[in-house]
Amino acid sequence: MPKVVLTYFNFKAVGESIRLLLLYGGQEFEDIRLTSEEWRQYKPTTPFGQAPVLEIDDKKYAQSMAISRYLGRKYGLAGATLEEDLEIDMIVDYINEIRAKGFEVRYEKDEAIQTRKHADFTQNVYPVMLNRLNDIIEKNNGYIALGKLTWADFLFAGMFDYLKMMMRTPDLEEKYPNFKKVVDRVHALPQLQEYLANAPKTTH
Amino acid sequence: MPKVVLTYFNFKAVGESIRLLLLYGGQEFEDIRLTSEEWRQYKPTTPFGQAPVLEIDDKKYAQSMAISRYLGRKYGLAGATLEEDLEIDMIVDYINEIRAKGFEVRYEKDEAIQTRKHADFTQNVYPVMLNRLNDIIEKNNGYIALGKLTWADFLFAGMFDYLKMMMRTPDLEEKYPNFKKVVDRVHALPQLQEYLANAPKTTH
Repeated sequence: MPKVVLTYFNFKAVGESIRLLLLYGGQEFEDIRLTSEEWRQYKPTTPFGQAPVLEIDDKKYAQSMAISRYLGRKYGLAGATLEEDLEIDMIVDYINEIRAKGFEVRYEKDEAIQTRKHADFTQNVYPVMLNRLNDIIEKNNGYIALGKLTWADFLFAGMFDYLKMMMRTPDLEEKYPNFKKVVDRVHALPQLQEYLANAPKTTH
Repeated sequence: MPKVVLTYFNFKAVGESIRLLLLYGGQEFEDIRLTSEEWRQYKPTTPFGQAPVLEIDDKKYAQSMAISRYLGRKYGLAGATLEEDLEIDMIVDYINEIRAKGFEVRYEKDEAIQTRKHADFTQNVYPVMLNRLNDIIEKNNGYIALGKLTWADFLFAGMFDYLKMMMRTPDLEEKYPNFKKVVDRVHALPQLQEYLANAPKTTH
């Protein structure tokens, strides 16, 4: 078994899917959660100045989606054909666009712009994208893609609280009931129970 | 050979890598370039309300990166191991973040915000990200990843003029000479010569 270290913050956000996938795969790993001070020290050693970073036998990898895809393929949570992988990837990229919209608001430094952008996206962007995603999950029998469990479900479940926070929509699952199906299915997996019962509390 | 139709606009932008990969793979395809009027008609039939769309035997796929990865794997332009694919994917995701920053400025509707954001990113965001990418290409012997030709080179070469336009930096290759190496290497591939000599002229 390779030596695996995940370095992120004490958030779920875009690091949680990696944790959940490693647990699913039965891979032992060190789950490092940096403080801001520790991050300043660690940042220059990362591939892109970003977290999460996954170290596998001392080689460092970055980018949450890329790492989640890698683990998904490794643990049998990818497609059976190239076309099936394309089907997963295209929906994952769409989810990432939704995340990026929320991100654009959340990390806007100018408060006036942030307020206006949040109102604009809440009116004109989020409903279209979220409805479409809800429909996709409907069509896929309560999964993100292919009508079965894939790494895309882990990706979405891992960032769900983060999406809610960035979009300021604590009742997101009531508006889009299929989102909850995906989260619940992932969270019901036996490999994750011990972790979920004992995981550090985080806001998102 | 499957029946393949690419539907996009008369731009390179995020559609060109798909064209170049299909040409590299020797796949015949219809290269539809929609007018704005045609797009309004076509849009409701797409998976996500977005272009490009790649039809393979009448099944529609969306998302430029996902499609490019699919074609890259199909035509022998991916990694030899899961770890090599992760290496490609993480750099591609980083390039996509750079693209998304330019996109955020280019498609900002409020002109005052757009001006300020362009100035901010030009000062604080683009240099760090572009320098890092330039260094990555340096380390990879003039390629995006793995020190050899992969689909990531097609992705970058295809969107290069688009990046320059969005960042308002016509001399991008002078500041970051390694970018030009990637573009030139892709554009020198024999499978692309007839297309490149005859392709419709586009601004970006």
